[in-house]
Amino acid sequence: MSRAGKVRVAVNGFGTIGKRVADAVAKQPDMVLTGISKTRPSFEARRAADKGYPLFVAGAGRAAEFEAVGLAVAGTVREMLANADIVVDAAPDKVGSENRGLYASQGLPAIFQGGEAAGVAEASFSALGNYDACRGKKSLRVVSCNTTGIARAVSVLEPRWGVDDWEVTLVRRAADPAESKRGPVNGIMPTLHLPSHHGPDVRTIYPDLPIATTALVVPTTLMHVHVNHVRLRKAPQDAAEVLRAFRGTPRFRLFAPWEHVDGTPQAMEYARDRGIGFNDMMENVIWEEGVQLEGKDLRFFQAIHQESIVVPENIDAIRAMLDLARDGPSSIAMTDSALGLRSKN
Amino acid sequence: MSRAGKVRVAVNGFGTIGKRVADAVAKQPDMVLTGISKTRPSFEARRAADKGYPLFVAGAGRAAEFEAVGLAVAGTVREMLANADIVVDAAPDKVGSENRGLYASQGLPAIFQGGEAAGVAEASFSALGNYDACRGKKSLRVVSCNTTGIARAVSVLEPRWGVDDWEVTLVRRAADPAESKRGPVNGIMPTLHLPSHHGPDVRTIYPDLPIATTALVVPTTLMHVHVNHVRLRKAPQDAAEVLRAFRGTPRFRLFAPWEHVDGTPQAMEYARDRGIGFNDMMENVIWEEGVQLEGKDLRFFQAIHQESIVVPENIDAIRAMLDLARDGPSSIAMTDSALGLRSKN
Amino acid sequence: MSRAGKVRVAVNGFGTIGKRVADAVAKQPDMVLTGISKTRPSFEARRAADKGYPLFVAGAGRAAEFEAVGLAVAGTVREMLANADIVVDAAPDKVGSENRGLYASQGLPAIFQGGEAAGVAEASFSALGNYDACRGKKSLRVVSCNTTGIARAVSVLEPRWGVDDWEVTLVRRAADPAESKRGPVNGIMPTLHLPSHHGPDVRTIYPDLPIATTALVVPTTLMHVHVNHVRLRKAPQDAAEVLRAFRGTPRFRLFAPWEHVDGTPQAMEYARDRGIGFNDMMENVIWEEGVQLEGKDLRFFQAIHQESIVVPENIDAIRAMLDLARDGPSSIAMTDSALGLRSKN
Amino acid sequence: MSRAGKVRVAVNGFGTIGKRVADAVAKQPDMVLTGISKTRPSFEARRAADKGYPLFVAGAGRAAEFEAVGLAVAGTVREMLANADIVVDAAPDKVGSENRGLYASQGLPAIFQGGEAAGVAEASFSALGNYDACRGKKSLRVVSCNTTGIARAVSVLEPRWGVDDWEVTLVRRAADPAESKRGPVNGIMPTLHLPSHHGPDVRTIYPDLPIATTALVVPTTLMHVHVNHVRLRKAPQDAAEVLRAFRGTPRFRLFAPWEHVDGTPQAMEYARDRGIGFNDMMENVIWEEGVQLEGKDLRFFQAIHQESIVVPENIDAIRAMLDLARDGPSSIAMTDSALGLRSKN
Repeated sequence: MSRAGKVRVAVNGFGTIGKRVADAVAKQPDMVLTGISKTRPSFEARRAADKGYPLFVAGAGRAAEFEAVGLAVAGTVREMLANADIVVDAAPDKVGSENRGLYASQGLPAIFQGGEAAGVAEASFSALGNYDACRGKKSLRVVSCNTTGIARAVSVLEPRWGVDDWEVTLVRRAADPAESKRGPVNGIMPTLHLPSHHGPDVRTIYPDLPIATTALVVPTTLMHVHVNHVRLRKAPQDAAEVLRAFRGTPRFRLFAPWEHVDGTPQAMEYARDRGIGFNDMMENVIWEEGVQLEGKDLRFFQAIHQESIVVPENIDAIRAMLDLARDGPSSIAMTDSALGLRSKN
Repeated sequence: MSRAGKVRVAVNGFGTIGKRVADAVAKQPDMVLTGISKTRPSFEARRAADKGYPLFVAGAGRAAEFEAVGLAVAGTVREMLANADIVVDAAPDKVGSENRGLYASQGLPAIFQGGEAAGVAEASFSALGNYDACRGKKSLRVVSCNTTGIARAVSVLEPRWGVDDWEVTLVRRAADPAESKRGPVNGIMPTLHLPSHHGPDVRTIYPDLPIATTALVVPTTLMHVHVNHVRLRKAPQDAAEVLRAFRGTPRFRLFAPWEHVDGTPQAMEYARDRGIGFNDMMENVIWEEGVQLEGKDLRFFQAIHQESIVVPENIDAIRAMLDLARDGPSSIAMTDSALGLRSKN
Repeated sequence: MSRAGKVRVAVNGFGTIGKRVADAVAKQPDMVLTGISKTRPSFEARRAADKGYPLFVAGAGRAAEFEAVGLAVAGTVREMLANADIVVDAAPDKVGSENRGLYASQGLPAIFQGGEAAGVAEASFSALGNYDACRGKKSLRVVSCNTTGIARAVSVLEPRWGVDDWEVTLVRRAADPAESKRGPVNGIMPTLHLPSHHGPDVRTIYPDLPIATTALVVPTTLMHVHVNHVRLRKAPQDAAEVLRAFRGTPRFRLFAPWEHVDGTPQAMEYARDRGIGFNDMMENVIWEEGVQLEGKDLRFFQAIHQESIVVPENIDAIRAMLDLARDGPSSIAMTDSALGLRSKN
Repeated sequence: MSRAGKVRVAVNGFGTIGKRVADAVAKQPDMVLTGISKTRPSFEARRAADKGYPLFVAGAGRAAEFEAVGLAVAGTVREMLANADIVVDAAPDKVGSENRGLYASQGLPAIFQGGEAAGVAEASFSALGNYDACRGKKSLRVVSCNTTGIARAVSVLEPRWGVDDWEVTLVRRAADPAESKRGPVNGIMPTLHLPSHHGPDVRTIYPDLPIATTALVVPTTLMHVHVNHVRLRKAPQDAAEVLRAFRGTPRFRLFAPWEHVDGTPQAMEYARDRGIGFNDMMENVIWEEGVQLEGKDLRFFQAIHQESIVVPENIDAIRAMLDLARDGPSSIAMTDSALGLRSKN
C-alpha cells in the first residue's frame, strides 16, 4: 500500500496492452502506478517519462540506451516489483509465462494476459462473468480480447434466457494499427483448426457453456467482428427485450440507425470523437439493426476493439484479487467512471 | 441453329460475367458464339475483336466511337439477337430486368444473372441443384455467386444425410480485382439486414431448406469465404466420408494440407498456376483441414471465386433450356471438360 | 464580439474538418464557438450536443428529425450566421462556393476550405506562408491538406537557401478512416493529369515557386506521404543544418531513429499516444533518417495527416482576417498552445 | 546440348520467379527444360509434375515427402545440374550466393536473380541495356524487377535524347499476391535509406547514368508504380515523339485513354484478359495520358509487374551467355514471340 492507502501497481511490459493498463491504473482513485517497464527506448517510452511514470528496464534492455536519449531509468524490473503490491504482466505472448517464476519468487500477486495458456494462473477472469470466484486469488489471467467480448455477451444472455447452443464466427483483424509487418494485404485466411481455440477459452469462464467458435483473418486493423448465432433455452419476448438487456449492461455500446455507424470504420470514428485515451472503444459494439430474433434463435453482430477491450478487465482483476470492492458491479462502476465510459447508452 | 448444328448464343453485356461466359460458350463443342455487346470501347472490347467475337453496340453506345479506335461493329443488340437461338444477359445488375421485354418481343429464350430479382425468369437455376426442373424453360436466372456456391454444397449434403439446419456466415470480398472505386479500404462492414438475402435465394433452388445466412464485407478482392455450420439429419461416419462426398462431386476442389493452400491468396495462386482463362477458379474451394464433424454437426469453410463460379452454370442453363444434354451430369461433364476443369481432385 | 470580448465564430458544416475546427475554436482563449451546423442526426451531431455546441440545421435538413432523437436545435444556418463575427465554411467540396453568396449577403467574413477553387475567396492562406498578406481580408481560402503541408516546408527552405526546383510525388491515402465506400481496395491509381493540381495550388501562396507535383492514390486511410526533391539555390552546410531548421519551426514533428516511428502506422500511433483530440497529427511529420542532402540537392519524406493538418491554419486565418494577433508567429504560438501541440521536438 | 541440339536448362528453385522461368524455357524453340527443384511438396510442385517437368529435391528436402503424395522425384539438385548446360538460380534472396560454389564446382554457367548482390556474377544484365557486353559470360545476374523496368526506360530515352538527371519515386507493392504474411495492411512505409539502392543497381547496367531513386511501400499486391522525372539533354519535339519511341520498343505496353486502364487494377485485368501464363504482364506499363513533356523535362508513370517482368530477361541472358542469337534484338524477338507478347501496341 502507498502512504495514501492506495494499492501500488506495477505494469511489466509497455506495449499495446501495457500502456493502456498503465494509464487506466493511473486514473483509478484507489490505485497508484509505481512503474512500467520497457526494453528499449521509443516514442512510447518517452511518453511514459512525460507522464511521470517511473521507467524500469526490462529483459535484455540496457539503462545506458535510455539515458543516451534523455530518458531517466528508475531501476530494473526486479526493483520495480519490490515496491509493488501487485503486478500486471503485459509482456508479449508467452513471455508472461516465463515471468511467472519471478513474480512467485517475490510472493507478488500477478495478473497475466490472454496470450498465455490458461494454466499460467489460478483462474481466468472476466469482470461480468466470474468476479466473485476470483476474489483473493494470487494469480489471474484476463482472457483475450475475443474471449472477453464473448464472455460479456454470455453474461447478458445466459442468466436471462439460458443458452442451448452458441456459435460464433470470429472475423479477426490481421494486425493492430501500429503493426506494419503482418499481413495479409489482400485475402482471407481461415483458421483451419476447427473449432477455434476461442470456445474452450470462453469455457474457462463459463465451464458448461455449449459454444463453438470458428475464426478467420481479414486485412483490416480496426476491430474484430463476431457473428453470433445463439439458440436460447427460452424465447425472449422480442428483439427489443434483448436490446434492453444489452443496453442495461455496462461495457456495451449500442448504436441506433440514426447514429449512422455502419461498420467498424464508423465505430472507431465514434471512439475518436469520444476521446477516451488512444481513441479506445472498451465496450462491445452492437448495432441495433444487427440484432435479430426468430423464436429462440438470436443472431447478432458485435465488434470488439482488440487493443482496449481487456483494459477495464485488468483493473477489475486487481480489485478482485486484493478484494478492494464490495462486489463486481461496484468495481466495474468505479473502473468505468474513472475511464470515462458512459454508464448508459 | 448454326449450319453446323450448333446452338447460336448471344451474350448481351461483356463485363466480368459476360466476357467469361462468352469465352466459355466459344469453347463448347455444341455451341457457337454469335456475338457480344459493349457500350463503349475499352481493352475488353479490343480483346473481343482480337478473338473474333462479333461486336455489337449496346445501350447508348455509338458505333462511331468504336470505329474511331479501329474496332469493327457488327450491328446493334437487336440485330445480334435476331441471329441467336438464345441470349445470355450479362448486363449490370437491374439492367437485365429492363432487357427482358426486348428478348420476349423477339421470342428469344433468355438467361439472366443473380443480380436480378428471382421474378425476372421462370425459374432460378443451379446445375447440381435443379437441372431437370429447368429443362425447356423459356427463361432462367442463374443464381448469384454466393448462392451458387451454397447450392452446390447443399447438393452434396442434403441427399446423403439430410439437413436440419444450415447456418452460413458469408465473408464477402469488397470489390472485384479490377474495380478501383469501391471500398472499404480498412474495416469490416456487417450487412445489418438479418438474415441476409442469400438464404431466401438458396430456397429458390431448394425450397424447403432450413437455411439462415449472415453476411459482412471485408477489404479484399479475391474471393468470398463461407463459414458453414450444418446440423445434419443423420450423422456421417466420419469427416473423411464427407470429404469423399465433396471430392466425388464435380465443381469442388479440395486442398490437402501438403498443398500449402492456406487461404484465398494461395487458392487464387493455384488458379493462376492452373491457367484456365482469367486465372479463374470455377470450383468451390474446400480445405480438407477445414472440415470438421462432431456427431451430426458439420462445420466447414468454402471459398467462392465471385467472378467465375457462375460461368459453367450459365453453360448448363443453356443446355437445360434447349434440352441439349441427356441429363444434368452429362451437361456438367461436357461443360467442365471444355473448360479444362479437373474431373477429380 | 461576445460580451467577454471574444470573437464569435460559427462553423458551417460538421464533418471531418468542421468538427475539428469547432473543437479548436472552442479551445482558443480569444474565440467563442457560437454554433455548428449539421444536415442530419448522427453520432457526430450528438457529440456536438454533448459538448454544448449550439446545433443549427443545415441545408435540406429538418429540425424534427433531430428532435426525434433528442437533439435540441438552435435554429437555422441563417440564424447561426446572424450571431457570428466570422464563419468557417466546412461544407463538402464545392458546396462552400454555393454558400458564398449567403455569407456575403450578411456581410460576414468567411473562411473556405481547400476543396473550393481558389477564386472562392480574396486570397489563399497558409499560416507560415502569407499571414501578413492576409490581414484584414473579408474572405480567405485555407489551402488543402497537401498544399498546406508543402507550403509549410517551403516556408522553411525558401527563405534560408532559395529554391531552384521543387518536385513532389504525393502518395495519397485513398479514403479517410471513417469513409467506407471509397476504394481502391488493392491497387495503385496514378493521377494521370500531369503535373497534378497541387503545384499550382502552392503557387497561390508562393507565386514564383518553381514547383511540379505528381500524385497517385494508394489503399490506406492514415496519411499522405510526400516524396520531395528540392534543388536549393545555395547549399546548406549539411543535412543537420536542414534538420535544425525544420526542428526550429512550429508545426513540424521530427522523429529520431530511436523513437521507432518507421512509417505512417507508427506516426499515427504516436498521435494516439499524445492524445490530442481525435488522435490528430497537425504537424508535418519528418523522419530524420529520411532527410538527405547531396550538395544543393535535398531529398526528404514528409507525412501529412489529411484530416487535421489544416485545423490550426483555420484558427490563424480567423486571427489574420480580424487582426487579432500582433503577427503570424504570435497567432501560431497562441493556436498551438491552445491545441496542445509541442512547441519543440 | 540435348540430342535435338537444344540448350539444356535447369531451374534451381521453383517459387515466384522459378516457376515462370521454367515455363518460359519450356516454350523456347532452342531450349529444353531438364529439371526444376523444390524443397517440399506443394500445389506448385504438383503442377510441375503435371507439366512433365522433372522434379529434383532441393536443399534440406526429402524425396520421401514428395513420394508420399504421389510426386515422382528425379534426383537431387546436384544430379539435375550434371545434365544441364546452364542453370538459372531462382532460389530465395541470398540463397543464390550460397549456391554459387556448387555451380562453379561443376563448371556450370549460372544466372542469378536481382535479390543477390551484384558481385555474385561477372556482370549484371538487362536485355535492352547491355546484351552485347554480356555475351559469353560464365555468370550473370538479371537485375531486379524495379531495376529491369528502369533500365528498359533508360534504353529508350538515353540514346535518343541523353539524360542529365533521372529521379524516380518507386511506389512498391507490399507483398506478392500469394504472400499472406507480409504487411502493412494499412499504412505507407518510406524506405528511409536515401537514395534507395535501386539507383546504384541501375548503374550496374548504365554506369554513368545520373540517377537517384527513392522508395516507399504501400499495401497492395499487384504492381509497383514508378514516378519518373527525367531531365533530358536535348528536348524531344513533343510528348508524341516520346510515346512513339516507347511504342516502338519491345517490352513496353502503352495504354490509350479509350482503353480505360486507369491504374494497376485495370492493367492486371488486361493481363488476365490477354491470358499469358499466370496472367503475367512482362512489359513496362505506360499510360499515354501519364506522359508529360515540358521542354526538356519529361515526367511519366510506369507500372512494373514484380512477379514476371524479369522472366524474358532470364531467357535472353541464357542466349547471351551461350551466344545463341545473332544479337540482342534477335533474342528479344525470339523470346517474346515464344511467350506470346505483342510485338506492337
